[in-house]
Amino acid sequence: MSSTFGENLKLSIFGQSHGSAIGMVLDGIPAGLPVDTDALEKFLSRRAPGQGRWSTPRKEPDHPEFLGGIVDGFTCGAPIAAVIHNHNTRSSDYQELMDCPRPGHADYTAHVKYGGFEDLAGGGHFSGRLTAPLCIAGGLCKQWLEEMGIRIQAHIFSIGNLEDIPFDPLNPQIDMVSGNLSVINMDAGDQMMELIEEFRQKGNSVGGSIECAITGLPAGIGEPMFGGIESRIAQIIYGIPAVKGLSFGDIQPTGLENNDHFTVENGQIRTLTNHAGGILGGISNGMPVLFKVQIKPTPSIATTQQSISYSEMQMRSLNVSGRHDPCIVPRAVPVIEAAAAIAIYDLILGNTQTARRK
Amino acid sequence: MSSTFGENLKLSIFGQSHGSAIGMVLDGIPAGLPVDTDALEKFLSRRAPGQGRWSTPRKEPDHPEFLGGIVDGFTCGAPIAAVIHNHNTRSSDYQELMDCPRPGHADYTAHVKYGGFEDLAGGGHFSGRLTAPLCIAGGLCKQWLEEMGIRIQAHIFSIGNLEDIPFDPLNPQIDMVSGNLSVINMDAGDQMMELIEEFRQKGNSVGGSIECAITGLPAGIGEPMFGGIESRIAQIIYGIPAVKGLSFGDIQPTGLENNDHFTVENGQIRTLTNHAGGILGGISNGMPVLFKVQIKPTPSIATTQQSISYSEMQMRSLNVSGRHDPCIVPRAVPVIEAAAAIAIYDLILGNTQTARRK
Amino acid sequence: MSSTFGENLKLSIFGQSHGSAIGMVLDGIPAGLPVDTDALEKFLSRRAPGQGRWSTPRKEPDHPEFLGGIVDGFTCGAPIAAVIHNHNTRSSDYQELMDCPRPGHADYTAHVKYGGFEDLAGGGHFSGRLTAPLCIAGGLCKQWLEEMGIRIQAHIFSIGNLEDIPFDPLNPQIDMVSGNLSVINMDAGDQMMELIEEFRQKGNSVGGSIECAITGLPAGIGEPMFGGIESRIAQIIYGIPAVKGLSFGDIQPTGLENNDHFTVENGQIRTLTNHAGGILGGISNGMPVLFKVQIKPTPSIATTQQSISYSEMQMRSLNVSGRHDPCIVPRAVPVIEAAAAIAIYDLILGNTQTARRK
Amino acid sequence: MSSTFGENLKLSIFGQSHGSAIGMVLDGIPAGLPVDTDALEKFLSRRAPGQGRWSTPRKEPDHPEFLGGIVDGFTCGAPIAAVIHNHNTRSSDYQELMDCPRPGHADYTAHVKYGGFEDLAGGGHFSGRLTAPLCIAGGLCKQWLEEMGIRIQAHIFSIGNLEDIPFDPLNPQIDMVSGNLSVINMDAGDQMMELIEEFRQKGNSVGGSIECAITGLPAGIGEPMFGGIESRIAQIIYGIPAVKGLSFGDIQPTGLENNDHFTVENGQIRTLTNHAGGILGGISNGMPVLFKVQIKPTPSIATTQQSISYSEMQMRSLNVSGRHDPCIVPRAVPVIEAAAAIAIYDLILGNTQTARRK
Repeated sequence: MSSTFGENLKLSIFGQSHGSAIGMVLDGIPAGLPVDTDALEKFLSRRAPGQGRWSTPRKEPDHPEFLGGIVDGFTCGAPIAAVIHNHNTRSSDYQELMDCPRPGHADYTAHVKYGGFEDLAGGGHFSGRLTAPLCIAGGLCKQWLEEMGIRIQAHIFSIGNLEDIPFDPLNPQIDMVSGNLSVINMDAGDQMMELIEEFRQKGNSVGGSIECAITGLPAGIGEPMFGGIESRIAQIIYGIPAVKGLSFGDIQPTGLENNDHFTVENGQIRTLTNHAGGILGGISNGMPVLFKVQIKPTPSIATTQQSISYSEMQMRSLNVSGRHDPCIVPRAVPVIEAAAAIAIYDLILGNTQTARRK
Repeated sequence: MSSTFGENLKLSIFGQSHGSAIGMVLDGIPAGLPVDTDALEKFLSRRAPGQGRWSTPRKEPDHPEFLGGIVDGFTCGAPIAAVIHNHNTRSSDYQELMDCPRPGHADYTAHVKYGGFEDLAGGGHFSGRLTAPLCIAGGLCKQWLEEMGIRIQAHIFSIGNLEDIPFDPLNPQIDMVSGNLSVINMDAGDQMMELIEEFRQKGNSVGGSIECAITGLPAGIGEPMFGGIESRIAQIIYGIPAVKGLSFGDIQPTGLENNDHFTVENGQIRTLTNHAGGILGGISNGMPVLFKVQIKPTPSIATTQQSISYSEMQMRSLNVSGRHDPCIVPRAVPVIEAAAAIAIYDLILGNTQTARRK
Repeated sequence: MSSTFGENLKLSIFGQSHGSAIGMVLDGIPAGLPVDTDALEKFLSRRAPGQGRWSTPRKEPDHPEFLGGIVDGFTCGAPIAAVIHNHNTRSSDYQELMDCPRPGHADYTAHVKYGGFEDLAGGGHFSGRLTAPLCIAGGLCKQWLEEMGIRIQAHIFSIGNLEDIPFDPLNPQIDMVSGNLSVINMDAGDQMMELIEEFRQKGNSVGGSIECAITGLPAGIGEPMFGGIESRIAQIIYGIPAVKGLSFGDIQPTGLENNDHFTVENGQIRTLTNHAGGILGGISNGMPVLFKVQIKPTPSIATTQQSISYSEMQMRSLNVSGRHDPCIVPRAVPVIEAAAAIAIYDLILGNTQTARRK
Repeated sequence: MSSTFGENLKLSIFGQSHGSAIGMVLDGIPAGLPVDTDALEKFLSRRAPGQGRWSTPRKEPDHPEFLGGIVDGFTCGAPIAAVIHNHNTRSSDYQELMDCPRPGHADYTAHVKYGGFEDLAGGGHFSGRLTAPLCIAGGLCKQWLEEMGIRIQAHIFSIGNLEDIPFDPLNPQIDMVSGNLSVINMDAGDQMMELIEEFRQKGNSVGGSIECAITGLPAGIGEPMFGGIESRIAQIIYGIPAVKGLSFGDIQPTGLENNDHFTVENGQIRTLTNHAGGILGGISNGMPVLFKVQIKPTPSIATTQQSISYSEMQMRSLNVSGRHDPCIVPRAVPVIEAAAAIAIYDLILGNTQTARRK
């Protein structure tokens, strides 16, 4: 099993970057949930290429075509299926990669695993393009969570050594995230754009990090041990290409500092600090859930690199052709939101209510 | 579902800290695998309490009793089941917690989720004690991986601001990890022990981090997307209490620095650096797999803290009684190894061999 | 994966017939559900040996010891774990089977699958004894279903060519099932007991069938396709040793006869007949769910049979020693109920409520 | 979860009868497996409508369009995705069904479950049309099994009271099944066609049964308990609309008759009879696997039936319009083969080899 996620919903993602289509099936969703396709398209456009100098030029809109599961704007109980057709023809650019893997890409590991039968064109099934169907599923879950008052918002935390303003862990300023870049501090955003442009011109790339907040999540969501919020979010987040690190909350060095003390505020139990990132024992405590994701710099760079030839079993140099994002962080922001939405909605679907002891 | 892990094997962990027993069932394991119970007990003793001043005094050995699945020193194909009996009687110490949750613990979230029916004694099912059955399962998987030449070794990376020597990412010095503390640099280890003792005396606790290496893992293990090594390790690692962060390899800021170039060495394809931590596209590339885990400071501290009373819905102060580890990091080292072993063995069981294209 | 069942709950069964214990872990059960251990023991006693001449002499009570998940008579949210200790020592009777498989048993298939490492003593993990932990799990689910007004009752439908009165499909007379044999017609039951005794004396065995009814199940339970009630019940029922057939409702030869017409009765939608056995499209329609299970005759018979020797790879004769049930059908009745209860409770746990369209 | 099947492969089926498309995603398939699309189309044509008087007139070919997972005639390791576009526009015929359910269909149960949001057009996701994507997945698995020497062939066992020649359980005559009807005895087939035509003219429908054989399956495939061949085949077979019964082998009334004695033939262990249908303890014994499936008569009949109106909550009469198969059995034959192929291939993928004890 590879491209399937979920305990209570079942998400199945398919397609290769240069195949005829990419898409997803989302099974286990209750009937009667509204679907706002305009909002979904808007959400998907945050991930789409061609939004600025930091990303690859837009070639085509990523318009999802729904094949099932939605009737007259509502889920009907059948699995939701959607495809995005690929309009690029199969490129001959990638022939070279069948013998010479790109450093930092999955070319070599796919070659070993699939024995020479792998589809490497455009990264095949390992391409960042596969995050588009993830965003379809996640964009829908995000809408349904919003109906329950649960909001998920991410922003760029850092690119290179430039940082945005962090979220306030007690009250994340999620409405202040704006712009194509998804930052709170627009000045920092401008600097980030300049930095990315510098890297583009140097034929290099740059990494960064993303911070995500989930607000409105009631206490009691998540299962113990391997079914905790952290475990579930981690499994799906690490399914996103280029993610190499993930942390929840903001650990302090000592217990005295790190423990979030409880208080009662307007009849509600809250904590005075939120170093735990809203999660204790894998289960939400009603405070905002906060996590950070480390994104590696795009491996495709316009610089000659050293690789090897399988057929000759010796070193050779490689120039990666094509146009590539010098920084993938901005486009990864909605993908992180989508992944978190799927994990949280899955947990909510499986949540069993316990009547309170009298 | 909560305390169940695995795609190809199925691990089910049960028990509460002060219940009659804790244990595990491990299903889906092939027959004919040797089981070295002496080696397993030795492995479990690394996690056991009472090894030094940094941990709670030893009360009892954690001796696993096997109820099924092993005959005459070999697996027989039936599920492997083992229990560890608890000899502590049910403590009245915990009655107070039913109305007043400990900061930093799962008391409050369990209370919300289970509606007052939760078992909080000793942390119940959320207790670190539940990592003992995890270590039974993981200790077995570790043995079977070693038979294949795959070794898993972790060490303390840091406690407070003290650091051990990091693993060499190209050739981790796993045979140099030694002592009860699992460090490479014994001097650093001595300092760590002193630091922990200082925190114990202050009634405080301290966190840290653990680094883990997997060597000998052949290229091609792992599935794309949500079935990648990172996703699978992350799901199980975040099931360990106190884990709040996880990262793979050692991301460099730019693509030029971060990409690991390929080379051919003695007829084997390798990389010149190993910033990817041995994983590309979720799949092993034959280099050592490396990851780091952030461990929060023990929440149980001998200092008066602020909490609340459910019955009175107002703040009150709380003194957590009992003896607790001032630093959980040393005892967490084998638990990290166990978790990694389970995730890797699960992936290997599910690995389908592709005949190489001619 | 083998001995694990469930989508929303996770049941894991372990143990071998002559190992130190058999048991089960049942994960995913909500907290706060009452557990009546007396009622459970009574339910288990229906499956226990030694109730009459038709079954093996009772050697020991099958008393379940709960290791976790239940506190003060209520589920606490942690996995429920229970064991039954085996008091029989490992018999040397079974040494012969390592070279000579019993016809009709799993000895040969286990031998091929587990390569000589299998535990054949008493049938090992394939023994009917493993239905005891299934009955622990099922007995609990049955109690929780009863709290919702859902009752599950089976009876012997036939043994040899003797038949009990069938259930009325519109209103199954489940309260009339009584006696150790679980029959409606006590006279038929007496004849069945005589028939079984005849087979015992002849050193032969006899098969039969069981009919099961589920009443009070609301309409709308079950998922489409592979998650339907029939699929879920079938998967677990076929996990019971000796089951070789299963059918739902009572198919009529033509559509005109087979279709159950709808009607409205006291403001409730019902059907005039119930050939569908309460299930349409895999989903309950509010009518009683009815199914029949075919049970093969016990393969262990006191008659010389032909088998083979692995070591000599030639035919030889075999006398199966030990005392065995000449008819397993009576003791299988509660096992069928247990299996059905687990499948139904699993579906109910995963059932997502859809608000009715206005 | 509903429309998802598999432990080692993951099949996800989507679409509604009158939606824009139906399709499937098949994940977890190794790379490098050949795909013969001509053979697949031929297999699908056995399920297609319009082959004779017994089935609905053909409107369109069910041509599968592959969206991913196959490159140059071989699987590439990525999930295999295929769609069949629906060319029928959404019919207004079905508006009536939103208030008045068809007897014997899932209209009512879907209505309860999905609260009025269900898609009933053409049966929606419950339509027999959804067996087309099942046949895509199963047709592929069938090809891959054939590469291993494992063949799956079903035939009509009975329609009404007409019967075909049964399979010889020791050596099923699978090459003798022929014709559009899939029968061994062509005369019986001709009579069946006449019988179906009679029922069509009477505005009624007729049910029957299908027998399926799997040959060449090596001993040792299948897992104990809920992972046995019977459990896995049963789960998927009961996902096929109209299936109401399933039995394996041919149980004999007594143990003496039912036990299949072992023998050695040409150095191979076999059984002298095959009442067990090739399965002992859920695991294959190397003999042909045999099972029978009961198919109910098509519920859509051209006769006025009694139903109810939801809005008026009273009885009313209903005439089901449209053209429907007077007997679904012939077209179900390849669907049974497809389902069996998926279950068996799934088990083979998960089979772990045990080295034989020395």
